Amino acid sequence: MGKYPRSPLAPETFPSLPVIDGLRLATVEAGVRYPGRRDVMLAHLAPGSTMAGVFTRSATRSANVLDCQAKIGLDSDAGAAIIVNSGNSNAFTGKAGEESVAAICAAVAERTGLPASRVFTSSTGVIGERLPYDRITAKVDALAEALDAARLEEAAQAIMTTDTFPKGATVTVEIGGKPVKIVGIAKGSGMIAPDMATMLVYIFTDAKIARADLQPMLTRLTDKTFNCITVDSDTSTSDTLLLGATGTSGVNVTGHAAFEDALHSVMLDLAHQVVKDGEGASKFVTVRVTGAASDADARTHALSIANSPLIKTAIAGEDPNWGRVVMAIGKSGAAADRDRLTIRFGDILVAENGWVSPGYREDQGASYMKNQSLTIHADIGLGQGQATIWTCDLTHGYISINADYRS
Amino acid sequence: MGKYPRSPLAPETFPSLPVIDGLRLATVEAGVRYPGRRDVMLAHLAPGSTMAGVFTRSATRSANVLDCQAKIGLDSDAGAAIIVNSGNSNAFTGKAGEESVAAICAAVAERTGLPASRVFTSSTGVIGERLPYDRITAKVDALAEALDAARLEEAAQAIMTTDTFPKGATVTVEIGGKPVKIVGIAKGSGMIAPDMATMLVYIFTDAKIARADLQPMLTRLTDKTFNCITVDSDTSTSDTLLLGATGTSGVNVTGHAAFEDALHSVMLDLAHQVVKDGEGASKFVTVRVTGAASDADARTHALSIANSPLIKTAIAGEDPNWGRVVMAIGKSGAAADRDRLTIRFGDILVAENGWVSPGYREDQGASYMKNQSLTIHADIGLGQGQATIWTCDLTHGYISINADYRS
Repeated sequence: MGKYPRSPLAPETFPSLPVIDGLRLATVEAGVRYPGRRDVMLAHLAPGSTMAGVFTRSATRSANVLDCQAKIGLDSDAGAAIIVNSGNSNAFTGKAGEESVAAICAAVAERTGLPASRVFTSSTGVIGERLPYDRITAKVDALAEALDAARLEEAAQAIMTTDTFPKGATVTVEIGGKPVKIVGIAKGSGMIAPDMATMLVYIFTDAKIARADLQPMLTRLTDKTFNCITVDSDTSTSDTLLLGATGTSGVNVTGHAAFEDALHSVMLDLAHQVVKDGEGASKFVTVRVTGAASDADARTHALSIANSPLIKTAIAGEDPNWGRVVMAIGKSGAAADRDRLTIRFGDILVAENGWVSPGYREDQGASYMKNQSLTIHADIGLGQGQATIWTCDLTHGYISINADYRS
Repeated sequence: MGKYPRSPLAPETFPSLPVIDGLRLATVEAGVRYPGRRDVMLAHLAPGSTMAGVFTRSATRSANVLDCQAKIGLDSDAGAAIIVNSGNSNAFTGKAGEESVAAICAAVAERTGLPASRVFTSSTGVIGERLPYDRITAKVDALAEALDAARLEEAAQAIMTTDTFPKGATVTVEIGGKPVKIVGIAKGSGMIAPDMATMLVYIFTDAKIARADLQPMLTRLTDKTFNCITVDSDTSTSDTLLLGATGTSGVNVTGHAAFEDALHSVMLDLAHQVVKDGEGASKFVTVRVTGAASDADARTHALSIANSPLIKTAIAGEDPNWGRVVMAIGKSGAAADRDRLTIRFGDILVAENGWVSPGYREDQGASYMKNQSLTIHADIGLGQGQATIWTCDLTHGYISINADYRS
């Protein structure tokens, strides 16, 4: 934290997040890896809270993820806790990884009076090094004592690794004349790709909703948000999204589309912030594909464009190199016909009918590429399939950050 | 050419390539795009030569590739010509692309007396700009007059784009007591990925062999060589491999494994040279996967490792970051079990049983990573599947080259 300059795409300030009744947080300096900063956060949810979650599908996922997955489907009225450390991912640490998770869960359970099955953990940072979990368990008392409703920004900071800014988002929606609040924090910067967008995300709401309704909603919205972003096509072993609904608003949101819309908006905001903090990112890029033979084909084309190193470097160089977009569509494996493609940069028609558009001038494209936020739109001309993927450019900053991440 | 420093992985010199009877070459300065250098080559093969070829499967492949594909399966005793320009790929240029190919083929056919169906063309360079083919047709006379047996190195230079060194390879094999010669040249540097390894390759031999035997051999060997290299996971719209066998040795090589071995060796040498000239490359990396559930799974894992930007940047930084290898195996989608993986850097056992190996010391790994040529070996521990992929690291050089390729 602080090692790399704040992303030029960062929002000016951290948003002002409202208090969620039934939610308290705390952070602490545990010295897991980073000296002189808060690196562990604890969130406590009141009895009666509903939990839902989405996790990475990596075959080498961490002990924390496996433990969360085993617990997330259980019903309980006991409340819940989430404890997260940065600096060490506890991934690929064999049996020691499971021991670390068990020890942390036991310490939190003992101090909070929760069953261990209601304690969720995440770890983020370097892979393959033993997590010094005793440094975390030694701080559980201090964390429990510090629990307070107004610590979301502090929590967002504590979970950062190579992130250059803390990420938060909020929406309040009125349902039946009463406000329902949603707040979320996220970390994620490199190793970002579906599925699911490589990161940690914690969302809290005072909505009242059963797990059986909340879980499918969360999965559905993840497919439209965090599973539609990519920084570098690499997927982490720790991806975790946890959502806790305290029910303290007293408003049952089941079946209210306005709630799902609001949650969607918080998740999309956080997903975009992760891309905007993509390692070395200098441009935010929306890749829109329409007219594909199917939605799945559209997604394949869009990811091929969004993950292409040649396109990402061209964007970094502000080069309107639409030929590389043609290349990425051609290589994707999904159906395409050279002569039916249409490519637009923003509103500028660049290519059509298998060639550059007669009205297109290179200086238009070059001028457009100077924007900080760009849209590449490819219409495949074959059907109705569509998809949108958000990504960033590939710059010298990415190389610098990742060639010496551990040193 | 000359814009970027010669790759540190380049061979010291261009190999001495023997003359192939029945093959003559010429190059010329046509000014297609690059000023002050030879940018067109012509190869002429004597009557009776056999032609075979392998081409990109991109859905947006160039007019040249489509034309070559239409011609390559035809039998003819008339001989053949190959004409190649650098600087402009003639890809995604609509009807104008087809006109360019037709005009160049017609000019070469007229001057050499060959049917146009025996003239093969390739174009390499920027995508989407009209090929000024008149500059090429204007030089066909000069090319035809300059045809000479000993111009292979000149030809290898004429087809370069961002390449930093010309690529050539040769093997002579004795069959039935008589020598059979094979020579090859290649270009390729960025936009390199299966299938098939993004490049232009021309191989010539004085072997006698029927098309029906030569074509399947070439396809088979491509899968073990050019389809096993990746620089940046991007696939070009122009990939072309053409093989011409003049038969002038008088040795029928059909059914002789020694010939296939020799051809394999020439193709592997050229494929490795392309990786060694990968844009910005400072390390040559062999990714070996064994113990996968199938060969296809092994290839999926190996490509996931070889294409991972996080692994490629770690290699650039000489960081023995084996955790990222675990990540890449986890995300690949092919079968894996965290606790059965074994990872080696060269001969050093790094990780096993789901964690770092007890005997591994970080300084061993760090010291190994300083080598210019590295092997990453992952054993998945599930079956007998295996694959080898060759790649390079991802450095600031790649960003510099590709952020301003057109400027």
